[in-house]
Amino acid sequence: MKKSITSIFIAFLLFSSHSAFAAQKTVKWKLAMTWPSTLTPLASPANKVGKLVSAMTGGKFTIKADGKEKHKAALGILDMVKGGQYQMGHSGSYYWKGKDINTVWFTTVPFGMTQSEQYAWFYYGDGIKYMNQVYDKFGVLNFPGGNTGVQMGGWFKKEINSVADLKGLKMRIPGLAGEVMAKLGVNVTNIPAGELYTSLDRGAIDALEWVGPGMDIKMGFHKVAPFYYTGWHEPASEMQFMVNKKAFDKLPKEYQAILITAMKAVASDMYYENFAASANAWAKMKTDFPKIKVKTFPAPVVQAMKKATDDIFAKYAGENKLFKEIYDNQQAFMKKARAWSIMSQFHYIKTSEMVK
Amino acid sequence: MKKSITSIFIAFLLFSSHSAFAAQKTVKWKLAMTWPSTLTPLASPANKVGKLVSAMTGGKFTIKADGKEKHKAALGILDMVKGGQYQMGHSGSYYWKGKDINTVWFTTVPFGMTQSEQYAWFYYGDGIKYMNQVYDKFGVLNFPGGNTGVQMGGWFKKEINSVADLKGLKMRIPGLAGEVMAKLGVNVTNIPAGELYTSLDRGAIDALEWVGPGMDIKMGFHKVAPFYYTGWHEPASEMQFMVNKKAFDKLPKEYQAILITAMKAVASDMYYENFAASANAWAKMKTDFPKIKVKTFPAPVVQAMKKATDDIFAKYAGENKLFKEIYDNQQAFMKKARAWSIMSQFHYIKTSEMVK
Repeated sequence: MKKSITSIFIAFLLFSSHSAFAAQKTVKWKLAMTWPSTLTPLASPANKVGKLVSAMTGGKFTIKADGKEKHKAALGILDMVKGGQYQMGHSGSYYWKGKDINTVWFTTVPFGMTQSEQYAWFYYGDGIKYMNQVYDKFGVLNFPGGNTGVQMGGWFKKEINSVADLKGLKMRIPGLAGEVMAKLGVNVTNIPAGELYTSLDRGAIDALEWVGPGMDIKMGFHKVAPFYYTGWHEPASEMQFMVNKKAFDKLPKEYQAILITAMKAVASDMYYENFAASANAWAKMKTDFPKIKVKTFPAPVVQAMKKATDDIFAKYAGENKLFKEIYDNQQAFMKKARAWSIMSQFHYIKTSEMVK
Repeated sequence: MKKSITSIFIAFLLFSSHSAFAAQKTVKWKLAMTWPSTLTPLASPANKVGKLVSAMTGGKFTIKADGKEKHKAALGILDMVKGGQYQMGHSGSYYWKGKDINTVWFTTVPFGMTQSEQYAWFYYGDGIKYMNQVYDKFGVLNFPGGNTGVQMGGWFKKEINSVADLKGLKMRIPGLAGEVMAKLGVNVTNIPAGELYTSLDRGAIDALEWVGPGMDIKMGFHKVAPFYYTGWHEPASEMQFMVNKKAFDKLPKEYQAILITAMKAVASDMYYENFAASANAWAKMKTDFPKIKVKTFPAPVVQAMKKATDDIFAKYAGENKLFKEIYDNQQAFMKKARAWSIMSQFHYIKTSEMVK
């Protein structure tokens, strides 16, 4: 009888050491996101990744997502993931440009790639390779975390007909795009999100950029600024998932595969979510506020923006060897990708418009 | 002693009935795909879904993918999944238009949505709802299975300057697009893939459509037909995953979530894979064969194609109530989605071209 019990235990132990069984380990992770936890679509990937991972593991592997209302450190996500207070983060890579300028390549850059071009570069070009290289020193694994698609150039109270019209204009526009605008004489200001509507309404600022119709409609800018400019500066803003490398390495390998697959699925999904939200919001804005005018910056303004962008890139490339390498790599990929974008979707839309 | 053994067994049974443990069930599935198993990117989702599912379950849930070279029934996939010979299939929904005309909505239609528009409709419009409704009667669950993006209008030996130039033209172009071309006087023929190059080279046909540069380059058409027309008829051809409903229902719920997430991840990935392949292939074609001319059909030809498309849709809508319902639903969604496509990516590319 004793022998039987021993056999049962041995069988049990053998069974438990099997890798599939090891995956039944209980893992409770926490994720910090830059956004309020209810701010769709930006908060969607962080909220959805936990639901999916939990569903795939029968609740054994959970990821609790905290919005900025909880952790109060919207721009401290990289540090918190690096330090291990949170195993995961959801944010935007370009927020870390003060730590490393090369983080900008994994969000978007002025006159950069579209969403399709960028994902092709990530997965079938050298994008992910450079992403790993740049984030390695932080002890953090970085993954694409959802894309907004083309962001609009912003809401303007007055029409912009020339570069001269930009001189002295007070505008909220952060990041590299802000650097470009500053070179063109714009008085670039930073104002907390909660004060933007009032600032624009009362003329404390003349213009601002936010995201696109899907997110802008909640801010109400269309009620106080009639000119809505098409995009040039953030053609495909990518969010990011960050994972603490040590925490990831400790996961059973099935959980690693589950996490990576879930992040991939929710990243692509955010793009579709924001696309639908923008389509619906724009239809509503246009109906409710028929006087909104969609404008594209005139060619001389675009040329000045492009020259300023090139100058800024040249400066960074001169200071940072890896910046130059990634820039050249992305430009070479983009040249081929853009030819295909034009030949395929751009011409298809042109063709469809012939018979509208 | 007897009591102890019983306790161990009870503990064991309790433990096994836990949902997470139940997921450790060994499941061996088979998938049949319409394509040869090495034909990337079409074969990629089917090959990758099994690898992912296996990695996520430590090899407990496997999906063996058979190409058409194995099962010899490229267009028998729906029947084989319905009948349970295969638990899964990977194919194109519009191949089943003979069984139900409404299957076409889940691939692409002439003058239809782009990939972004279509995925927005699937997941944030009524697309998936209709997909489930149409496939329910087959006892099959249907899921998006990867997208080619805009397919090119095809390779032509002579330039098309008018509708008259289409009359009597011998062309390989299947499906709804073939019906449209037939209405315009084209002599639509069907020729096996292996004979297409020779037929085009020797003049047995004057034109053909295939996919886009990424797949066309392997066929060699660019060596024998100099005019490459931009797309109108398959703006976002979606592949499909089919899953036998009874087999799916028997899966532990963790495996169901794992399978659904894996299908989502590989479907989006195929679009990026084909985008990169097309960008690279077109760069190569253009360099090796500088005489290839990319052309867009002139407006009167496009107008005739659109009229024929509308007539065909009106005929089907008259015969089939659900066809009309889905058509109206898709058109309403597309109207909003297209406005956003133009305002965002189309204008962004136009702006970028100003400073090329």
